[in-house]
Amino acid sequence: MTRTVSEVPAGPFPGLPMSPRLLLGPGPDMVHPRVMAALSAPVLGHLDPEFLAVMDRTQQLLRYVFQTGNRLTIPVSGTGSAAMEAAVASLVEPGDRVLVCINGYFGGRIAEMARRHGGEVATIERSWGEVVGADEVRDALRERPASVVAIVHAETSTGALQPLDEIVRVVHEAGAILIVDAVTSLGGVPLSVDELGIDLCYSGTQKCLGCPPGLGPVTVGPRAEEKLARRRAPVDSWYLDLSLLQRYWGPERTYHHTAPISLNFALYEALRMIAEEGLEARWARHRANAELLWSGLEALGLTLHVPAAHRLPSLTTVRIPEGVDDGAIRARLLSEYGIEIGGGLGDLKGRVWRIGLMAHSSRPENVTLLLGALGRLLGRS
Amino acid sequence: MTRTVSEVPAGPFPGLPMSPRLLLGPGPDMVHPRVMAALSAPVLGHLDPEFLAVMDRTQQLLRYVFQTGNRLTIPVSGTGSAAMEAAVASLVEPGDRVLVCINGYFGGRIAEMARRHGGEVATIERSWGEVVGADEVRDALRERPASVVAIVHAETSTGALQPLDEIVRVVHEAGAILIVDAVTSLGGVPLSVDELGIDLCYSGTQKCLGCPPGLGPVTVGPRAEEKLARRRAPVDSWYLDLSLLQRYWGPERTYHHTAPISLNFALYEALRMIAEEGLEARWARHRANAELLWSGLEALGLTLHVPAAHRLPSLTTVRIPEGVDDGAIRARLLSEYGIEIGGGLGDLKGRVWRIGLMAHSSRPENVTLLLGALGRLLGRS
Repeated sequence: MTRTVSEVPAGPFPGLPMSPRLLLGPGPDMVHPRVMAALSAPVLGHLDPEFLAVMDRTQQLLRYVFQTGNRLTIPVSGTGSAAMEAAVASLVEPGDRVLVCINGYFGGRIAEMARRHGGEVATIERSWGEVVGADEVRDALRERPASVVAIVHAETSTGALQPLDEIVRVVHEAGAILIVDAVTSLGGVPLSVDELGIDLCYSGTQKCLGCPPGLGPVTVGPRAEEKLARRRAPVDSWYLDLSLLQRYWGPERTYHHTAPISLNFALYEALRMIAEEGLEARWARHRANAELLWSGLEALGLTLHVPAAHRLPSLTTVRIPEGVDDGAIRARLLSEYGIEIGGGLGDLKGRVWRIGLMAHSSRPENVTLLLGALGRLLGRS
Repeated sequence: MTRTVSEVPAGPFPGLPMSPRLLLGPGPDMVHPRVMAALSAPVLGHLDPEFLAVMDRTQQLLRYVFQTGNRLTIPVSGTGSAAMEAAVASLVEPGDRVLVCINGYFGGRIAEMARRHGGEVATIERSWGEVVGADEVRDALRERPASVVAIVHAETSTGALQPLDEIVRVVHEAGAILIVDAVTSLGGVPLSVDELGIDLCYSGTQKCLGCPPGLGPVTVGPRAEEKLARRRAPVDSWYLDLSLLQRYWGPERTYHHTAPISLNFALYEALRMIAEEGLEARWARHRANAELLWSGLEALGLTLHVPAAHRLPSLTTVRIPEGVDDGAIRARLLSEYGIEIGGGLGDLKGRVWRIGLMAHSSRPENVTLLLGALGRLLGRS
């Protein structure tokens, strides 16, 4: 049992990097000092009555942010992708027909997950930056009925904002359940789960909610809860089984896993700040700062990738001008100005930049600084 | 599209609780101020070159802590239970025969996960607090071969430390792969993945590593990587698919999800502290403080649940004396002394208390305080 112990690797292992950064990419974004302070509050035990009270209050505030009365409204203990998989794994049973609308990277990810959980997946595909029409969904469901339809409200990869009103109606008329990805919209873009009638909606904490990444809020409506309860077999994931998570977060408090205490503290404080600001004021702030950015980019002679009608306020895609070196500009923004913006993903790689104005990053001074820096680097100001 | 917005719920939503707490339960435990400072370092983008450097260094230090050269050594972006499911989902294919050793709560959880991922599960069951013998594993595998065997090194629910040397040999002789749960041992109890020959080992950050909860370190050896590569179908989870996670953390850096930046900062700092202390010194510290606790509990006339030969230094189970009100004592410890210890779980509910001395909680002054408080509350000092 006496073992030789291998030595500490040579390293070096310096302290954490602390270079100044203004995060204006697709997320994470700047985190407000109040939220950072909450993140580093003393850790409590996961069964401490004081932590249980934070859980309850977090659920109440999450319901406000989702605009829902759904009892099953919780932060999943993983990133937005974990919330996505909790949604898909819990609602899609092997053999279920699933229709996924794909007009960007994240629609594709939902389809991939649905396949892995045994769904028979059909897709509606649109080019990156466009949105999906309700007629297309109606036609697709007539041709091949499905029990679950999934769509992305705010495509982080393209900057397109998907209208949902008509689509919810069409999906419900066809007797299906609608999953909506609101990772880049919740808390920054108008969204009302109950008024729209969305059956399951999920998000991530590091976008418009203004937290560090690591939690994925989810809300589950009555029709989706009923489908979950009617499953023929248990969810094929234990960690992401929403029925187990409901018993953990609900009044039963059945032990499931140890919630990430510190991230939940940060989320609670961020939700308190949203409640103080008020959702409508917050949506308006995101919109106003986005419009400031859009007009400034156009004043620099740049072209916005998504038409105004479907443009997402939280994340803007702007086309990289002919002859401009994508990587070089982003590297100089980072090294000379400390500003991070995002490159294109998938079909838009090398074609657009992605600029996020979310939560504490959505401030007019950030727009002014970015436009000034970009103007200089492009020789346009 | 003009929507009515429901109002902020009545609340109240006070600021975070800050009651003084000494965490001596089964985890989370006290987090060192250096780790808390790292947790609240400014958030970086997940593609920032400075964050990528932290990822690389974290992997190097994790390999030291696991005592392994395995390239696939990463923190899964979820709690220890997420790491458990990443292990099980990635290695167990539908129809695979799996043997799970159950002598406490967490062995049972592994079996449940293996079933959900399509494994045909057999179990060896021992009463809570005992350990499993290599002969039992050999006999079970002779009677019914399995491709995967899973066992818990440190049962958080019972306080038993499972010897592994012989079992690794027996499992390998039978041509199977061994998964080891080291949630409550990694970083606090002697464990050498490569020298023992463990094929896959996972842990959680909030135990002997001394971080807040939220990440689940995993290391995957060559035989387990080969089984993963030979799978007939993709892993039935996307978020917890270790082959995708290797491509994200490895040199390809293929985008998968947005890593929880702040928790990774905390983990990096905690690992730096382990490297500074040295693993052997850290193991010895955990052992010494545990022995101080054990002799102090016995001096109070209490009985330790697990015999000395298999007693876990990081988590101690002590029997609740006849006639003593479990909940009342724990509530008074919390309200009068600010000390959290754990109650029993499952078969041991109401029968034992669980006292954790892990990472920054493993200090002699904590033992002195707890023994003093417990002695007074029990009227034994």
